[in-house]
Amino acid sequence: MNAENSLAAGPANPRFFLRSGPFDAQAVAQAAQATFVPPADGRALPAEGFKGIAPLQNAGSDEISFLDNRRYATLLENTSAGLVIVAPAFADKVPPHCAALITSEPYLAWSRVARMFHPRHPARAGVHPSACVASTADIHPTCEVGPFAMIGENVKIGAGSVIGAHTVIEQSVTLGEECRIGSHVTLSHAVVGDRVIILPGARIGQDGFGFAVGPQGFETVPQLGLVVLGNDVEIGANTTIDRGSVNNTVIGAGSRLDNLVQIGHNVQMGRCCIVVAQAGISGSTILEDFVTIAAQAGLIGHIRIGEKARVGAQCGVMSDVKSKADVIGSPAMPFKEFFQNVAVLRRIAKKKPGSSESSADKDDKKD
Amino acid sequence: MNAENSLAAGPANPRFFLRSGPFDAQAVAQAAQATFVPPADGRALPAEGFKGIAPLQNAGSDEISFLDNRRYATLLENTSAGLVIVAPAFADKVPPHCAALITSEPYLAWSRVARMFHPRHPARAGVHPSACVASTADIHPTCEVGPFAMIGENVKIGAGSVIGAHTVIEQSVTLGEECRIGSHVTLSHAVVGDRVIILPGARIGQDGFGFAVGPQGFETVPQLGLVVLGNDVEIGANTTIDRGSVNNTVIGAGSRLDNLVQIGHNVQMGRCCIVVAQAGISGSTILEDFVTIAAQAGLIGHIRIGEKARVGAQCGVMSDVKSKADVIGSPAMPFKEFFQNVAVLRRIAKKKPGSSESSADKDDKKD
Amino acid sequence: MNAENSLAAGPANPRFFLRSGPFDAQAVAQAAQATFVPPADGRALPAEGFKGIAPLQNAGSDEISFLDNRRYATLLENTSAGLVIVAPAFADKVPPHCAALITSEPYLAWSRVARMFHPRHPARAGVHPSACVASTADIHPTCEVGPFAMIGENVKIGAGSVIGAHTVIEQSVTLGEECRIGSHVTLSHAVVGDRVIILPGARIGQDGFGFAVGPQGFETVPQLGLVVLGNDVEIGANTTIDRGSVNNTVIGAGSRLDNLVQIGHNVQMGRCCIVVAQAGISGSTILEDFVTIAAQAGLIGHIRIGEKARVGAQCGVMSDVKSKADVIGSPAMPFKEFFQNVAVLRRIAKKKPGSSESSADKDDKKD
Repeated sequence: MNAENSLAAGPANPRFFLRSGPFDAQAVAQAAQATFVPPADGRALPAEGFKGIAPLQNAGSDEISFLDNRRYATLLENTSAGLVIVAPAFADKVPPHCAALITSEPYLAWSRVARMFHPRHPARAGVHPSACVASTADIHPTCEVGPFAMIGENVKIGAGSVIGAHTVIEQSVTLGEECRIGSHVTLSHAVVGDRVIILPGARIGQDGFGFAVGPQGFETVPQLGLVVLGNDVEIGANTTIDRGSVNNTVIGAGSRLDNLVQIGHNVQMGRCCIVVAQAGISGSTILEDFVTIAAQAGLIGHIRIGEKARVGAQCGVMSDVKSKADVIGSPAMPFKEFFQNVAVLRRIAKKKPGSSESSADKDDKKD
Repeated sequence: MNAENSLAAGPANPRFFLRSGPFDAQAVAQAAQATFVPPADGRALPAEGFKGIAPLQNAGSDEISFLDNRRYATLLENTSAGLVIVAPAFADKVPPHCAALITSEPYLAWSRVARMFHPRHPARAGVHPSACVASTADIHPTCEVGPFAMIGENVKIGAGSVIGAHTVIEQSVTLGEECRIGSHVTLSHAVVGDRVIILPGARIGQDGFGFAVGPQGFETVPQLGLVVLGNDVEIGANTTIDRGSVNNTVIGAGSRLDNLVQIGHNVQMGRCCIVVAQAGISGSTILEDFVTIAAQAGLIGHIRIGEKARVGAQCGVMSDVKSKADVIGSPAMPFKEFFQNVAVLRRIAKKKPGSSESSADKDDKKD
Repeated sequence: MNAENSLAAGPANPRFFLRSGPFDAQAVAQAAQATFVPPADGRALPAEGFKGIAPLQNAGSDEISFLDNRRYATLLENTSAGLVIVAPAFADKVPPHCAALITSEPYLAWSRVARMFHPRHPARAGVHPSACVASTADIHPTCEVGPFAMIGENVKIGAGSVIGAHTVIEQSVTLGEECRIGSHVTLSHAVVGDRVIILPGARIGQDGFGFAVGPQGFETVPQLGLVVLGNDVEIGANTTIDRGSVNNTVIGAGSRLDNLVQIGHNVQMGRCCIVVAQAGISGSTILEDFVTIAAQAGLIGHIRIGEKARVGAQCGVMSDVKSKADVIGSPAMPFKEFFQNVAVLRRIAKKKPGSSESSADKDDKKD
């Protein structure tokens, strides 16, 4: 079998995804909250409506596409799509055979149109017979609980939530409404809001990394706080969030964590923060609202990152970061300073090729 | 539901944690192995003893708190706690209404007092009826085996150990006494000591990353060693430890690994090492005793890190590190040299703002 | 119990590994595809054949060992092994009592010999009674499906594949022949080739990290692509591979990913790429064939890495990398330039000890 060739390119393979529609231009424009512009060449729209979505290079005359990244602008000029969602700046690049939806937020509009055509699987109410549910658990009858899930004593799960296969929810955890907990998740010592999404394999609520040095070695310090996930939080696959040691570890409403992120005990994260894959935040550090932490960045403990600050990829943050600051590098510094340093060092090193060549060669061999 | 506001601040919510006590000052002092100093204003201690622990800002007159980090010293001066655990240096900052326990190890003392008030859940002896246990497995009758656990042929588990829900222990693995294995752990090809703690989702004993280049592509090299975890080892959530290829991968007694750590095949780690979250150690590297590897550091393979050496966060170690050395940076260098380099480069770059500005700006846009 | 001392050193403990043989020198030479050289001192080979493999320092006269790394050359001169596999360059270092197998690919030869002595556990055909298998799943009768595995609707699994305990394979996923899926794996929205190996805890096919900024916060963008794993792909423990958003995420045939790797949505990886532990590749980035990404490296999205390029450990790649280039550093630069920069900066900093000492000391305390 050649897996790579066995699938047509293009999104939303019907074997894997639900499909709705077709929808006419008016319905699509409404979902997109965008301004409709008919084809410049005056042709009629597809009589049965638009049937689906597709990337610019694959879309046909009854499909909808979008442009969000100027790297791909030439694809727009050559598309056969019947309808495209674009920003005003690209309106004049839309081919004449093609209708347009013009919006200042094309990616958001695309997202809503895509969801209209491909809704999420609804919760299939009921507890799978193989699940292990404590008699004191309070699970709303509209919830779906998957095979081999384990729901502990006094757990409470709100209406419409879905608990994936093999997920373990330990004693006394509460979840709000319309949550989607993937498979193989561990949740303990946690209070979870509404509409929270947790992807497979996330570990939430385990012991933080706390120990004291005793005469016979390290002694574990009891970790007596919880994890609090606000409404609309999303947690990536295999991400780990330790519970607090004394206070709680808090992920503020609307914040999104990618895969393989590490959140130490007592971290306080504000609203709508973004933490990209493989970043790590050490214990007791505070993120104010709307902070972005890029991939593989690391923050030491006990510092504060101001509102709307942005921490670059692989950045090593050892001290507080001011509100709205952009930092990168290890140790962290302003973006401009970092790239200036890089440029200056490059220039100096090039000036002295004779003197440094030999030592550089030597180091080279170490790798 | 607003999850963030639904919980009172403060540790050890009784829904989630066991609670013991109250305890009188003498019992607390004994657990803390600290010197008791009565309140300076001469007031009586709480008649019924101390009821629990709390952070300085929340503790009441029948609660115990502590100070370990001088950042929070003003909280001590304003606390309402009835008893505080502090180092001698802070003894004169203890408010007059407040008793004190003076010790050179306040964090250790706090840890023991906290454990006295909030003991761990004891093992609930017995195998859950949903667990899948091989007939040849030898599980001590005092062990707790959780729902859906899978225990393979010839596995041996010592007295008092707890195996979490969904944990898979493959054929012939042995565990010592009083181990705590969390949920969703995979253990294969491993020999585990006493009192070992493994947090959820850790993967221990799988194939190392070993392959040879053959004429048709890579060929897997059989990985024929084991993983050996010494007594009192602790392994974090979603951490991965590959088994040895020829020799064993060894984590020495008392060592502690945080979450999302990667340990390659044949790594030999000594006693009481610390490896913080998201650090990675490549194959066949040796850590002597008491080595600390900070978060997100990476070590190449086949090197040796000397006793008590400390490797800083995000450090990239490409060669041996001497005993007691402190290194940081990528490539690794002594702490002082690293920060000196940072300072010198900053000064040079600032001196030449005109010449470098344009190139810095250009690079800036790449992000 | 002292776990560290309870095991003899040496590979392939029979409690954990299958064992075959003994094999005579001819059979071993054939498996190794190497040239046999009898012992220089003329002694006879073991009459019953060679019984197993062992490292140079432990092997006896009826065992086989190998040398691949010149660091360990003195071990060869002192070995008691009866037969060693070595490259031509080491042929004259083989002790006189010892036969040799000479090959330009000693590691590959060793691998094949080791596999001959220690074959993989064959698939034990059958579905474990505790597994939860949808009636529409099409599982070849030669497959092994472990305890508590969950196989969804319309899943198809080819001949000879092994599905580990607790693994979840969601609706419509297809797997080819002779795959080995470890325990606790999650597979959804995926098409998997033949002979694919997935280690425990890998998460494959979950939602990518895609969201648009809406008026009330982030809105999830539907992720409508799949994950495609080519033939002979190997995926490490707790690694995460997100499915595509519009196109598919593709891992090309023969590529190998280590543990804790993150692959973002829409990544296109060519044939025989290597991605070492804790590296991360952001969305829509393209790796051509034979690319190597070393440990903890990070690549931003929407870039292209040329054929046979090598990205060093901890490297931060922000732009395209040419075919066959070797880059390292953050931001990425050619190997030689990186080590030259390091050397130049070190020299400059040493020249100015007086002026920089104070600032360096100050920074030092921040850690």
